[in-house]
Amino acid sequence: MSAAPGEFELIERIRRRVVARGDVVLGIGDDAALLAPPPGRQLVVAMDTLNAGVHFPLGTPAADIGWKALAVNLSDLAAMGAAPAWCTLSLSMPEADARWLDGFLDGFSMLAAMHDIALVGGDTTRGPLSVCVTAHGFVGPGRALRRDGARLGDDVWVSGTPGDAAAGLVLAGIAAAGVDRIEASTEDRDALAFRLARPQPRVALGAALAGVAHSCIDISDGLLADAAHIGRASGAALRIDVDALPASAALARSADTDTRRLLQAAGGDDYELCFTAPASARDAIDAMARECGVPVTRVGDVTAGEGVRPVDAEGRHWQPARTGYQHFAADQR
Amino acid sequence: MSAAPGEFELIERIRRRVVARGDVVLGIGDDAALLAPPPGRQLVVAMDTLNAGVHFPLGTPAADIGWKALAVNLSDLAAMGAAPAWCTLSLSMPEADARWLDGFLDGFSMLAAMHDIALVGGDTTRGPLSVCVTAHGFVGPGRALRRDGARLGDDVWVSGTPGDAAAGLVLAGIAAAGVDRIEASTEDRDALAFRLARPQPRVALGAALAGVAHSCIDISDGLLADAAHIGRASGAALRIDVDALPASAALARSADTDTRRLLQAAGGDDYELCFTAPASARDAIDAMARECGVPVTRVGDVTAGEGVRPVDAEGRHWQPARTGYQHFAADQR
Repeated sequence: MSAAPGEFELIERIRRRVVARGDVVLGIGDDAALLAPPPGRQLVVAMDTLNAGVHFPLGTPAADIGWKALAVNLSDLAAMGAAPAWCTLSLSMPEADARWLDGFLDGFSMLAAMHDIALVGGDTTRGPLSVCVTAHGFVGPGRALRRDGARLGDDVWVSGTPGDAAAGLVLAGIAAAGVDRIEASTEDRDALAFRLARPQPRVALGAALAGVAHSCIDISDGLLADAAHIGRASGAALRIDVDALPASAALARSADTDTRRLLQAAGGDDYELCFTAPASARDAIDAMARECGVPVTRVGDVTAGEGVRPVDAEGRHWQPARTGYQHFAADQR
Repeated sequence: MSAAPGEFELIERIRRRVVARGDVVLGIGDDAALLAPPPGRQLVVAMDTLNAGVHFPLGTPAADIGWKALAVNLSDLAAMGAAPAWCTLSLSMPEADARWLDGFLDGFSMLAAMHDIALVGGDTTRGPLSVCVTAHGFVGPGRALRRDGARLGDDVWVSGTPGDAAAGLVLAGIAAAGVDRIEASTEDRDALAFRLARPQPRVALGAALAGVAHSCIDISDGLLADAAHIGRASGAALRIDVDALPASAALARSADTDTRRLLQAAGGDDYELCFTAPASARDAIDAMARECGVPVTRVGDVTAGEGVRPVDAEGRHWQPARTGYQHFAADQR
């Protein structure tokens, strides 16, 4: 009988792919993991779930799902300025499929190794395809990047080239940020699809910014929607010049100005960082960004008000059709 | 327009029900939680998911789901001897339903308050009903209750009265442990259903046993299946007298000997503790159990071999139809 693998066999397949860390006293295989936190640091905990048909289309390659499930959580750690340490994984699958699991682990474990994060526990269970990850990291006391720390006069920065992932969605036939169609060459299409499938959590940049930036968030729901969280938490408005947003060559070639603005300002899934910092930190931030190999761009400033104030290159108010993704809003993606 | 609540409104409803703790630097509302671990202790992390139609029948009251989702994770902390501190919650719902959420929180928050565990983050998202919880606790270095610590000659103990939850399942029309039908009075039926719906994680007992018991596991898949995990991890066999298992009055009245043995030895969902300890600790364990208000019973001993050796009152080998629940085994519940 060619039996489907049991739960314990699946767990064993997972265990073989885990990054080793000296601070894991007891990893996968007991009722819970046993871990040795570094003395004198604060623990940062993020948890995000990806559901099939909601966060990724059915038919997405297993390796992309594995990568993204960890990436979105590492991105949350990055947005707090934390250095990753440990994660747990809860995997619900309609049936025990060892080949699918191995593909999933190809993506998950590659990213885990890149960021030295050890998978220490979790569970595998039957159910509609769903991946829940909890990620743990550490930051020095008082150095975490919070949403509520923006100050009047701060610069507003973004990392990387926002809008690419949303363009990738549109090219896959899924409307995003009010855009339902763009044209791209095969090469640009591949580049934008890759940015959607394999977001790069800005872990090193986030850790470098800890204690330097005043506030930070990662761009999951769209730049304006996420920047507005900083604004509201800080009692200020982030003025963002939508024409200052750095566009990738692939996006610049594939979208006209209006479309580019929409995708960059309101498109989600980029997992870049949006942060605010004093003007006095500009040189330090540029140096850190070079060291991390991640471009950063000043795109606005923190002003009086609440939330976010999008403007165009002439300083005129700019209003997108919609400003971000809410999972339960009536007006869905 | 009577709009469905958005994601942020749901999160706000959750935030209002959270237990306050001084070691939570930053709870719900940022990219991740920021927490202050106590110095010199080890961190214990457990993660378990409940899926609708797999771990609970569709139509289960929301409050019972909320209770159980936290209870199964607290039970994992208890099985490690950890004192609970923080948890995160990822809640997938087919639609934003504020009334359902409030019911869920009635169960979840009541149990959280009883065990002083603070909900510090997570996410709410659209998808088939699924609840994933990660629980964090602390234990002194070297004091955690692991599966691999059982020693030859140890007593084997169980807390409470295993078998009640499985009886509750059977009474609800779901076959368990090879039993598909029992008869019970209305009062006994209610008592057994309550044990299934509202398992009591043995947190205080687990914490008291830390540094005293040699090994421990919580009974989620069935006593024999879970005891076998201790046996295999420890390189020994746990000999368990299935006629020494303490039965609740409700179960004793509702099941004949064969049925009772099956439900108690192979039925899951009890979330009692099975642990081993040296004979020299008997008085101390009895005293701890009284202090915690949880009955404990010696049901066997640790012998040479591997896994588990079920015997009856005359010491004869006893073999159940099946020995535990595997989520992906061909032979499902």
